[in-house]
Amino acid sequence: MKKITVFSPASVANVGPGFDVMGFALSSVGDTLTAEMSSEQGVRIRKITGDDGKLPKDVDKNTASIGATSVMEKLGIEGGMEITLNKGLRLNSGLGSSGASAVAGAFAAMKLFAPEKEKGFVLEDCVKAEAAVSGNHADNVAPSLFGGFVIIRSYEPLDIIRLKSPTKLFATVVTPDYEVSTKEARAILPSSVPMKSLVHNTGNVAALVAGIAMNDCAIIGRSISDSIIEPVRAKLIPGYASVKKAAMDSGALGCAIAGSGPSMFAFSDSGKKAIEISNAMAKAFEREGLSSDKLVSKVNGEGAKVIGK
Amino acid sequence: MKKITVFSPASVANVGPGFDVMGFALSSVGDTLTAEMSSEQGVRIRKITGDDGKLPKDVDKNTASIGATSVMEKLGIEGGMEITLNKGLRLNSGLGSSGASAVAGAFAAMKLFAPEKEKGFVLEDCVKAEAAVSGNHADNVAPSLFGGFVIIRSYEPLDIIRLKSPTKLFATVVTPDYEVSTKEARAILPSSVPMKSLVHNTGNVAALVAGIAMNDCAIIGRSISDSIIEPVRAKLIPGYASVKKAAMDSGALGCAIAGSGPSMFAFSDSGKKAIEISNAMAKAFEREGLSSDKLVSKVNGEGAKVIGK
Repeated sequence: MKKITVFSPASVANVGPGFDVMGFALSSVGDTLTAEMSSEQGVRIRKITGDDGKLPKDVDKNTASIGATSVMEKLGIEGGMEITLNKGLRLNSGLGSSGASAVAGAFAAMKLFAPEKEKGFVLEDCVKAEAAVSGNHADNVAPSLFGGFVIIRSYEPLDIIRLKSPTKLFATVVTPDYEVSTKEARAILPSSVPMKSLVHNTGNVAALVAGIAMNDCAIIGRSISDSIIEPVRAKLIPGYASVKKAAMDSGALGCAIAGSGPSMFAFSDSGKKAIEISNAMAKAFEREGLSSDKLVSKVNGEGAKVIGK
Repeated sequence: MKKITVFSPASVANVGPGFDVMGFALSSVGDTLTAEMSSEQGVRIRKITGDDGKLPKDVDKNTASIGATSVMEKLGIEGGMEITLNKGLRLNSGLGSSGASAVAGAFAAMKLFAPEKEKGFVLEDCVKAEAAVSGNHADNVAPSLFGGFVIIRSYEPLDIIRLKSPTKLFATVVTPDYEVSTKEARAILPSSVPMKSLVHNTGNVAALVAGIAMNDCAIIGRSISDSIIEPVRAKLIPGYASVKKAAMDSGALGCAIAGSGPSMFAFSDSGKKAIEISNAMAKAFEREGLSSDKLVSKVNGEGAKVIGK
């Protein structure tokens, strides 16, 4: 029986003005999934660790197994696969936890049953799996799968554009010990936006992409500006304004909510600054009575990968 | 008495999803302006040609003289300047006619009185002059001044990002003999837009910039998609749908309204195709009983320039 272990990184979606259309992958933090072929038809979840018992083992409800099942059905595989999943990131943290699992499951199934395929083969399966638990958006799964910065140009048909990250760019991510439900964070969004805000956000997302492509960290930083989603979601995060101020005062080029929060991320142009920023942000959360996890990371350029056989 | 002649190119604003935030400069078509120092204080318009007598010679109402005056006041110039303006593009065509004049006037004043300055010195003056006649937007003046593709990240403060155009990219522009007032084209726009359309336009404008930066004409083409402004303004242009279809059927990578119309532009990846597309688009306008001017151009990489002394 063949066996494979994959790592699928956490990711930051939205990235300021890029609501539902941009994301980037983080290093070191993510899901580790071991998949083993079995003779019994279909996917089963053998064990999940690191989730405090919160995630469903029901194969129809866990994004890892939904992703894996989708890939196996597409390949017409007769036979099965058993999954052991280690969650390396907190649920509902805003770092694409369900997306990382979806990618881990789908990518592992591909590597086990059709290793000659390219990653793009499983993208739709990842989006489908993510959609089953948290809506049809690809801005977490695409960076988890491919790495780097990713643009979702279109959902139907799915059209993804990948961008390499500037090598000097560092991301700081701070996750307070506080839960924001993705569903609630969606529910409070307005159904329409003023024309002026459209111009603000399109101008900034265009500049953000230009900054990434031109290797210009300063442009990236000042393009992290969203006049639509962030002002609404800020209310869900205790201390939002003071955390952002702490980041900017410590040398961050830009700072925003990661995904739907409560994690917040900041960009900077050196590892030293990124650490100082993480300390300042964590202290600001502390003043709200919240402890937090800190993470400093370059943008992960490789995405999901095989780490063991 | 010193004298200078400058050329300021026409431009295409909006560029599909980039309403008020993107534009690019055209080659060969534009305004030619001769400015001559004079001892009499202030700016005067000596002569305007190519406008069928439609443009005001009142220095407070013509963007060329407003732009020139603004620059001279900023420089604290004692003395004056006389302008001769030759309009090389039709008014209200959607190709940034007033913007080209604003740039011509401001740039000529700078070259005459402070030739050591960089173009960025007069950008605010150009925007101010344009605003005096057609609203506060920089997506025509910035490309006319600098050339290439330009992103307007922010209006306050004004923050412009320039991008080189892919060398293989060709623009076809067809201007029917039909007038669309810029004011009317603004007045019919909705004051708010659905969240779904925001996601569509931000995704496409992000991809458009990525395509330009990555030298990928196919990505540029399929990013020329606007779900907000174009569907509304299409109604102002007779034959819009059939002109667009004619362009796409002739090999265009993308096609949209130039600025607020009635000109329409299409992108392609060869000069031969660009000409075929221009013929097909003109024929489609002909079926609506409209003759039209055709133009095939690479993106103009240099913007406003001195062509005579």
